[in-house]
Amino acid sequence: MAESQPSLGESAINREHQVAPRELVERRSGPVTAMDRWLSRKILEMAGDPPINVRLWDGNEISTHETVLHRLVVADRQALWQLVYDPEFNFGELYATNRVSLEGDLVTFLEAAYQGISGTDKSPLHKFIQVVQHRPRLNTLRGSRENIHHHYNIGNPFYELWLDREAMQYTCAYFPEPSMTIEQAQVAKLHHVARKLQLKPGQTVVEAGCGWGGLARFFAKHYGVKVKAYNISHQQVIFAREKAEEQGLSDLVEYVEDDYRNIVGTYDVFVSVGMLEHVGRQQYTVLGDVIKRSLRPNGFGLVHSIGRNRPGLMNSWIEKRIFPGAYPPSLKEMMDIFEPNNLSVLDVENIRLHYAKTLEHWLMRFAENEDTIRGMFDDNFVRAWRLYLAGSIAAFTTGELQLFQVLISPDMNNELPWSREYMYPQGQHP
Amino acid sequence: MAESQPSLGESAINREHQVAPRELVERRSGPVTAMDRWLSRKILEMAGDPPINVRLWDGNEISTHETVLHRLVVADRQALWQLVYDPEFNFGELYATNRVSLEGDLVTFLEAAYQGISGTDKSPLHKFIQVVQHRPRLNTLRGSRENIHHHYNIGNPFYELWLDREAMQYTCAYFPEPSMTIEQAQVAKLHHVARKLQLKPGQTVVEAGCGWGGLARFFAKHYGVKVKAYNISHQQVIFAREKAEEQGLSDLVEYVEDDYRNIVGTYDVFVSVGMLEHVGRQQYTVLGDVIKRSLRPNGFGLVHSIGRNRPGLMNSWIEKRIFPGAYPPSLKEMMDIFEPNNLSVLDVENIRLHYAKTLEHWLMRFAENEDTIRGMFDDNFVRAWRLYLAGSIAAFTTGELQLFQVLISPDMNNELPWSREYMYPQGQHP
Repeated sequence: MAESQPSLGESAINREHQVAPRELVERRSGPVTAMDRWLSRKILEMAGDPPINVRLWDGNEISTHETVLHRLVVADRQALWQLVYDPEFNFGELYATNRVSLEGDLVTFLEAAYQGISGTDKSPLHKFIQVVQHRPRLNTLRGSRENIHHHYNIGNPFYELWLDREAMQYTCAYFPEPSMTIEQAQVAKLHHVARKLQLKPGQTVVEAGCGWGGLARFFAKHYGVKVKAYNISHQQVIFAREKAEEQGLSDLVEYVEDDYRNIVGTYDVFVSVGMLEHVGRQQYTVLGDVIKRSLRPNGFGLVHSIGRNRPGLMNSWIEKRIFPGAYPPSLKEMMDIFEPNNLSVLDVENIRLHYAKTLEHWLMRFAENEDTIRGMFDDNFVRAWRLYLAGSIAAFTTGELQLFQVLISPDMNNELPWSREYMYPQGQHP
Repeated sequence: MAESQPSLGESAINREHQVAPRELVERRSGPVTAMDRWLSRKILEMAGDPPINVRLWDGNEISTHETVLHRLVVADRQALWQLVYDPEFNFGELYATNRVSLEGDLVTFLEAAYQGISGTDKSPLHKFIQVVQHRPRLNTLRGSRENIHHHYNIGNPFYELWLDREAMQYTCAYFPEPSMTIEQAQVAKLHHVARKLQLKPGQTVVEAGCGWGGLARFFAKHYGVKVKAYNISHQQVIFAREKAEEQGLSDLVEYVEDDYRNIVGTYDVFVSVGMLEHVGRQQYTVLGDVIKRSLRPNGFGLVHSIGRNRPGLMNSWIEKRIFPGAYPPSLKEMMDIFEPNNLSVLDVENIRLHYAKTLEHWLMRFAENEDTIRGMFDDNFVRAWRLYLAGSIAAFTTGELQLFQVLISPDMNNELPWSREYMYPQGQHP
């Protein structure tokens, strides 16, 4: 981030002061009452009593600690009630619409909140409320299309502003050296996946959920393989085809605008990076069946996905506003893809902290481009995405989310390397 | 067990299946009938119709192929019926007592049988019979002691005849170079586990299920760590303590004759190699709780175990005669250790073919020492163990069994390496 530009914290606070109609809001909510103060303390308690100060609409401040790291600014009484009722969902709603704002570093605040919540046993009532109100949307063939449209068709130029400029990867990068740039780390990720799969020139690869097609082009260009890549996002497929044409890779890479469940043919390699999060749990056995039938007996497959240490729903606000239908599975849940289809799990690597670092790079670029993005959309959009990126960093640094790469093979494949050393050729990453 | 006590073969198998002289059996069974021929074809069909010839007690031969690789010799009519009734269990019983024998390579025959069976859908009746008759024995604290006594207390001198002479490891070795000797591969396994756990001098390690204590002594000697190792086999603990004394490692290694559930204290590292197979599924959450409470927040744990691609029982004959209470879990089942305890899975490596190779080395040494072993026990014991070792090779080469090493950590540990390259130092294995 350039030093002249406002930091995330600054931009959040600065904008606070720009919000003029505060006096109007204050008049409507009236002076702070004993009940408002009680609710504020309740919020702090629900968050595990972090060193946070709640500042209400008339300037009243509530804190349970002597020194505070962050100030949570609540603009009206209704916002206060909404936070108590369902903090997980409403914090996002209120933050995006600027009725709740934060003074201090957003990521650190969210990390403290995640740690506080995971340390607190939620009340049965609270759990019940969350369960009945929040269910990921179903991923039928049509449902998937709508869910994916929601997220990926908001415009390629938006993503180009803050993703890497090398392969436009909207998935976890790989930082074998933590000082790498995001471009280097995305390239390192693609090599890492290619090596795990032991790609050889002339092999055929099928990809499920190919995003803007970066992996397919990279594999074709650097490993001489033929890739058939499926995606249901129209905008992404158009973009991917144009890029392949530009790079002279059209004879090696084919982009198919269709659902992974419609994959046909047999291949040496199956790969799916960052799609499983969007595949509902109900579809796991079907996905496994697709992998099984599309792999030759000595083939290899790799599934790269956000996951969890134990089952749980995606943050309800992110699921509703950012990623409809998203569900990060635990490894136990993920096994429903492989076990019914007798696919053998050869290797699982958890690169959780690599996603935190990836998101830090994205958030920095996002912050640098906030003015442009505000011009493309509006301020609520900017605040929502800032919260989503910062919240995701916190989720990965606190262990709320994991990132699994799972290497698999049909059960009778005995052409296996004797060591994983082949994944780590000396001095090959920058 | 003192040598004067009855051996496994004598105590269990002999009593139930007294071997009558062959001529007597042939006279008793009488000439082969149309029903005997039908049963023989049924057996071949149940095994997936392999190129095998069945030779019955009067010299009659039944085959469904023109060229055959193996000849299965059945000594009496009762044996034939027993094979049809429950081939999985009775093949072992009959082979051990020489009422069924084999001409041709035992491993190749068993591989063909495994492949045939996994390709055949068992009849509902057959499945029902197997389910009602076979349940692994329960692993209560007392049950575990009895189960382990059954297998490990049959005498250290027996195992010394065919296990590696370096660290006396009765678990899967690691062959980064397939030409390694069993001694080199067991040492490579111990280094591989130590590296995964990032052992540092002065650290404390707790081991659950330490066998003859080889891992504990190796870690202490080569990595300068302090190891507390638990085992409920009295004979193994006595042996382990003597070796530690001999090698001057008594101040670094402590062997505790107790159950893993009674582990106390907090350690930098938890390790368990080859115990989980003996831990009943009902105990997985308890095992995870033991791991959780014995690890410091930035500690690492490793569980090394036989597993499966999907849930299934251990071969019923092996479970009854060789490993009472044994159950190799699928990864999904294994997650019941980690997920309820919020332990984070960092890395899973499947080294299935390494166990086939380990067993090949063991079977070779076992075969070289058959006369000695027959003198220590009896011929039934030799045949039972030969079948167990050969059958295990077949189970690993056909993918019926897997070998998982799972590296874990408490959920909030952020002191994680950025790459697994540290597990593969160049040129460190012979």
